[in-house]
Parts: sequence; structure tokens; C-alpha cells
Amino acid sequence: MVPFSEKLKNAIQRTHGCLCVGLDVDLSKMPKNLPHNGEGALQFCRSIIESTRDLAAAYKPNMAFFESLGTQGFEILELLRQSVPHDVLFVMDAKRGDIGNTSRAYASAFYGILKSDALTLSPYMGADSIEPFLEYPGTCSFVLCLTSNPSSADFQLQTLQSGEKLYEKVAKTAAGWAKGKKGEIGLVVGATQTQYLKDLRALVPDTTFLVPGVGAQGGDLQGVLKEGRTKSGYGILVNVSRQILYASTENDFAEAARDQAQKLVNEMKAYF
Amino acid sequence: MVPFSEKLKNAIQRTHGCLCVGLDVDLSKMPKNLPHNGEGALQFCRSIIESTRDLAAAYKPNMAFFESLGTQGFEILELLRQSVPHDVLFVMDAKRGDIGNTSRAYASAFYGILKSDALTLSPYMGADSIEPFLEYPGTCSFVLCLTSNPSSADFQLQTLQSGEKLYEKVAKTAAGWAKGKKGEIGLVVGATQTQYLKDLRALVPDTTFLVPGVGAQGGDLQGVLKEGRTKSGYGILVNVSRQILYASTENDFAEAARDQAQKLVNEMKAYF
Repeated sequence: MVPFSEKLKNAIQRTHGCLCVGLDVDLSKMPKNLPHNGEGALQFCRSIIESTRDLAAAYKPNMAFFESLGTQGFEILELLRQSVPHDVLFVMDAKRGDIGNTSRAYASAFYGILKSDALTLSPYMGADSIEPFLEYPGTCSFVLCLTSNPSSADFQLQTLQSGEKLYEKVAKTAAGWAKGKKGEIGLVVGATQTQYLKDLRALVPDTTFLVPGVGAQGGDLQGVLKEGRTKSGYGILVNVSRQILYASTENDFAEAARDQAQKLVNEMKAYF
Repeated sequence: MVPFSEKLKNAIQRTHGCLCVGLDVDLSKMPKNLPHNGEGALQFCRSIIESTRDLAAAYKPNMAFFESLGTQGFEILELLRQSVPHDVLFVMDAKRGDIGNTSRAYASAFYGILKSDALTLSPYMGADSIEPFLEYPGTCSFVLCLTSNPSSADFQLQTLQSGEKLYEKVAKTAAGWAKGKKGEIGLVVGATQTQYLKDLRALVPDTTFLVPGVGAQGGDLQGVLKEGRTKSGYGILVNVSRQILYASTENDFAEAARDQAQKLVNEMKAYF
């Protein structure tokens, strides 16, 4: 089994970019001429994949949307999984994390059944909530570290008695969890947090970052690429969702999505 | 719409206990004569509900298990929801939490579609990751505060520069999020953490606690009931899963489950 970071390096070399296309489907924003239901969402995602597959290093479906479809949600997700080419990474955004036997069940759902390459997880419950996910070779479990939303400051930016911020403690601690394990650990670091990115990269020089928040959320792509890559020059995925998905609501939505993806990869090329 | 804390008070007065039966289905531990698949799990949960409905203040299915069933998981969960009597609370253990529009989709899945009375959430992303859940009247969003697993110490017990522990900061901050909102906020506090329970209760005297970890995880029921109730004397749900569900793997599993539930409620009666 090829380690996740190798698969990511291959995907970056293939596309000359580190673009992760976030499949954050929102029925109310979908193209006008597609049915606004689960079937339509699947058709929509497949068209986006078809038109961007040579530009995307990864696709990242958002589990919340599929759960909000109820019974048919997981079925549509499995069909979507089958539509992703094998050289493009499949990252499930689910932000799970629970006690051991529960995390084992989640790991089985996302890594076992869905064959995801990566999964987002929440750190709040500590090491034993993450360990079951590290039993799957070829995967990367991305632990929330410093997120892109305004309220990330509520707890993540709290200063500990030791002088470090909570997110720094999370970064160092989580990076250590992967030692001797089959799966890798990565970190979610919001693109809106570039003022912290350089120091964070120095703290964990080899850990893969998944960086959401470029585009609609206002993050700075150049700053992220400059400061966020690992020592090896790879080890980063920059996620963009709305800017690509909803570039047009007309029949040309797939071409408009491709144009946006192409524009982003053109900006990334200088770094890869 | 009756507020969650009122519904809980009614359920406690009806049962003279605050027992939450955790439906943590584990196919490998299920009764021998039931099919070890999704249909069997539904049949199993329905038998447990049938035999304990007059003793249970709440049922708490664990979402991880249903996700691990793949496509049929949510369908089975919806059928299970319909099997829970209307005077018993339905608490979904899902530990969600994400940026605003994603949390809205989760809220729609769990409160909108499934009509859960309550849901567990992770605090790491702060206020704006929780707010969308507070738009549903009659609900309680239980935020993870101090969990029952050993690694809870990794981050939750970290001391902040202010001198308070992270879990205390989470408790106070989260309790404030419900002000002026339609839904209530509760806290998840592990029964293995009784040494912290008294101080935590003093910090948030009116906030409902969901207390897992009694039974298989070793928590102390008497200590929890003594220190954990709200000022009003209610405001607590004690979750027990394995001790009830797997009391027997023979054909008498439902009666054996009832015996365990009865034993627990007998211990609770002195407090209600």
C-alpha cells in the first residue's frame, strides 16, 4: 500500500497544483437545470469531477450534506466514490472523533466501506479517539488544528499555562500519534490563519496540511503556498469549494468550474 | 414546543430515574439467535426498547454504528426513531461540529429529518459551529466538555494561562451560547470524572449534563447523582450501554436487559 503522502506527491506532480475541490453541495445553489435533490446532486458532482479531474489533486465531499439527504445519502456517496478516478485522492470531510469502539466503527465506515484516502477528525477527546483511524495503511487522518471560521478563536487560540496556544499543543501532540502506525496524521489549518502558518510549519515540518478557506472564506492562496508546504515541498492540499462549484448556475456550470480550477492551478504552478 | 429540560423533568418524574439507555450496537456482541446485520440490529434495538420503555428516560443511538452499516444505516435509524415512544427522549450521539453552513446541514439531518430531542456536539470550532443547532426549539445540544475516555486528559485537562482548565472554559463558554436561543445547551461530562463533577456543577448550576461512562467504563453512579444534578434536582441523564444491551446473549436478552435497567433505576430512585 502506497503511503498517503506519496500518493499526494504523485497527485501534485501530475497536476502541478495541490488543489482539493470541496464537494460542499448546497441544493439551493445548484445549477438551475438540474433536479434539486439527491440524484441531481450526484449528477452535479459527477459533472464537476468530469470537467476538473486533470486539475484536481483531491476531491473532498462534505458528509453533512449527504447526511442531510437522509436514507439515500450514503448510497449517493458510495456512487460518488466510484466516480472519482483512482489517481485523484478522496478526502471525506466528516470531523469525527469518539471513544475507542465508536471511532473503530467510524473508521470502518469511512476507510473500510468507502475506501477514503483521508478523513477529517476532531482532536477534543485525545489520542484514543484517533488511534483506531491509524490502523488503515495508505490513509491520512486530518486532525482539526486551527480552523478557518471566526469562532476558532474561542478555544483554539487560548493560551496554555506553558505559554503555547491550544492549537500548537494539538499540532505537536497529534503529529506524534502517527509514530509506528499504519496510517498518517495530517492537520487542518485554515487559510484565513496565515499569520500563524509559518510558525506552525516550523513546529511540524513534515506533517501534511489540509487548508480550507481560500476563496469564499477570504484566505490568501499565495501566503498559504509560500509558508504551508512541508520541508519536501509537497505535503499540502488547498481546498476550494464554492468558487469552483458555483461559478455558474447556468448550463455552462461544468466549464465555468473548470475555468476557476484552472485559474487556481495556474497560481499554484510556480510552487510545484 | 416544550423545552428540552421540561421534557427531561417529565421523563425523570415518570421513571423515578434519569436512565439513558445507550444503543451502542455491536454486531459481534449481539444475541446469538438474531441475524448479525442491520435488520438484526433493528430487531435487537426494538426488543430492548420494548422491554425497558417504562424505565428509560431516554435512548441514545450511536451514529457511528449506523454509518458503519453503509447505505441501509440511515434507513434503519429512521425506523428505530419511529419505535421510540413519544414520552422517552431520543438523543443522537454523533459528536458533530463544523463551519456554519455545514452545521446547518447536520442540524437539518438530526433535528429536522430525524426529529431528535438532543444531539452531542464537539466544541473545538467554537460558537459559530454550534449556533445552527440552537435554532430548533425543544432540543438540547450536548457539547463535549469532560469525556470519560483516558485520553480526555490530552487537551481537556490542560490548564490555561487564566488558571482554569480547558474543560471549565468550554463549560462556561458553551453554557452562554444558549442565551436567547430556541434550543438549549447541555454538557457531556464523563462519569469517570467524579472528582471534577462538583466544581463543574457549581460553575454551571442550571445546565443539563449527559453523563456517559457508568458501568463498563467504571464510573460511580452514586457520586454522579449526588453531585451532578442541577439546582432544580433534575437536569441529568446517566447513560449506560453495554451493561444493559449485552446482559445476556441468549434468547432472554430483553428480560436480562430489563433486569439491569431496573437495578439501575432502583439505585437512582432515592434521588428522584
